[in-house]
Amino acid sequence: MIYRRSFLLLTLSLLAARGALAQSGDPLPSWRAGKAKQSILDFVAAVTTQGSADFVPVPERIATFDNDGTLWIEQPMYVQLAFALDRVKELYPKHPEWKQKQPFKAVLEGDMKALAKSGEHGLMELVLATHTGMTTAEFEAIVLRWLASARHPRFHRPYTELVYQPMLELLAYLRASGFKTFIVSGGGIEFMRPWSEKIYGVPPEQVVGSSVKTRFEMRGGTPVLLRLPQMDFIDDGPGKPIGIEEHIGRRPIAAFGNSDGDLQMLQWTAAGPHRHLALLVHHTDAEREYAYDRKSTFGRLNVALDAAEKSGWTVVSMKDDWARIFAFE
Amino acid sequence: MIYRRSFLLLTLSLLAARGALAQSGDPLPSWRAGKAKQSILDFVAAVTTQGSADFVPVPERIATFDNDGTLWIEQPMYVQLAFALDRVKELYPKHPEWKQKQPFKAVLEGDMKALAKSGEHGLMELVLATHTGMTTAEFEAIVLRWLASARHPRFHRPYTELVYQPMLELLAYLRASGFKTFIVSGGGIEFMRPWSEKIYGVPPEQVVGSSVKTRFEMRGGTPVLLRLPQMDFIDDGPGKPIGIEEHIGRRPIAAFGNSDGDLQMLQWTAAGPHRHLALLVHHTDAEREYAYDRKSTFGRLNVALDAAEKSGWTVVSMKDDWARIFAFE
Repeated sequence: MIYRRSFLLLTLSLLAARGALAQSGDPLPSWRAGKAKQSILDFVAAVTTQGSADFVPVPERIATFDNDGTLWIEQPMYVQLAFALDRVKELYPKHPEWKQKQPFKAVLEGDMKALAKSGEHGLMELVLATHTGMTTAEFEAIVLRWLASARHPRFHRPYTELVYQPMLELLAYLRASGFKTFIVSGGGIEFMRPWSEKIYGVPPEQVVGSSVKTRFEMRGGTPVLLRLPQMDFIDDGPGKPIGIEEHIGRRPIAAFGNSDGDLQMLQWTAAGPHRHLALLVHHTDAEREYAYDRKSTFGRLNVALDAAEKSGWTVVSMKDDWARIFAFE
Repeated sequence: MIYRRSFLLLTLSLLAARGALAQSGDPLPSWRAGKAKQSILDFVAAVTTQGSADFVPVPERIATFDNDGTLWIEQPMYVQLAFALDRVKELYPKHPEWKQKQPFKAVLEGDMKALAKSGEHGLMELVLATHTGMTTAEFEAIVLRWLASARHPRFHRPYTELVYQPMLELLAYLRASGFKTFIVSGGGIEFMRPWSEKIYGVPPEQVVGSSVKTRFEMRGGTPVLLRLPQMDFIDDGPGKPIGIEEHIGRRPIAAFGNSDGDLQMLQWTAAGPHRHLALLVHHTDAEREYAYDRKSTFGRLNVALDAAEKSGWTVVSMKDDWARIFAFE
């Protein structure tokens, strides 16, 4: 009896293993064969093969991903900016003075040119006015409520559906290969965390981003963290290696970006002692998504593209390298 | 043949499982039976038992540990302060002006009373002068070199041996129960990370601490992060919930401390929606370690002890609850 049972168990487990193997075939089915895909496969094979000269132990397999334009859409404007604009309209009844005050006036009048003129300083003012003054728990609820109802102006879908299917496959493939995957974004850390685990499989503690200062307070015996209208950290450009060191404390061996804001993260990754993968997503598909690079307001890719060519980093052409961009296609 | 082989495999795997079970017996062998140990066992059983009203899914099993006085020794002074004092002596040849300047003069003359008089501001000045001005990689090497040679004045052992065996068991027990364990310390984040993985099993990305500002620079084509003489964040007292939110982005369900600097971390943990464990280590053993609480310069435990009594938090008496304090005993 025990012989028969054990044989059955063994057979079942062998079948299960074979099934998993058969399914696994291509870990990146939405990537077309080509240099970009091959550079990913070669890198992962090299760093995960025990005995290979490039082998990297599991704890050091750190991969960092930019978010806007690398994992999800960033045109016609950063998603978080769309959120801020909607928040201005929502909060306007409590701030009648905004009608006369830039950059709020521009938002309320839908005057995108005047808004653009207000520059980075103006955008920061919008973010601080719309993202602070509440507790961290309240802000999380506000973000989730907005994401549930907001729709992209061209695709008419929730923003959380406008994530790139090839990058979701890449995240999963790296994790299955022993990598810890992090988001390292110029966007707000508390804007991404409420949904990063569900959408990307990246838990809150592996999200690095820009942040505002908070204050610990007791409210009727209950502790809260209040979001203050003051920037704490800007996780962009040279801020990315700083944010990586502060939050992760080790250097990535793989980094993925799409704009000049990712240049220093890729430089920092490429300068490490291990074999590395530095990759830029190049938005080349106006038909299925958008085509932009050197002169774009959002996600400008100019000096980083030159650096990629000079340094031999992997550049992904969305048009050529991605068989599918969104899961719903 | 296949029958025999499969039987052998099954038998071997069953034996292996039984062996693991037998070994596991008591997960906290250095803890004496009593209220403190039982509160830990009860908590872990409750949050890990599927179907229990208190069950908590694995991703939300976050545990945070203070370091100084909770995981390792903090008398006769914080280990990091001993490091700073040694650094002052080492750097003195390059800073002859220190001979006339407090708090450096006090350090060079071994005048601990004058040093104490310089207060928090003086200590901060010492830290900034001795912990900055180098790259992050250089600082890591300096910390490791010092730890390899420094010895505790009473125990004459490396500081990394003066970690509490019962807490090492607790860290391992929680991890084996699906918890992610974090250090949340007032100490310097870059002072702990070079050794936290080896000593505590806590990887760098799960260490939260105080930090200085850094600057990204290219040096001859190679990117470095330079440590600047300016505090970035103080992860102590009300700073601990702030650091937890910034680095982890979720609320712990278990928190472990030993001083007033841990009060807000325990309050923040206790106010969460899940069943929680808030625990204070009370240093009550002058013979095997040290006895101190309400009036201690380092690791003062005063208002947090009152809060623990009022709130029913677990208070560990090192003398009564720990059968062994250090692994070498």
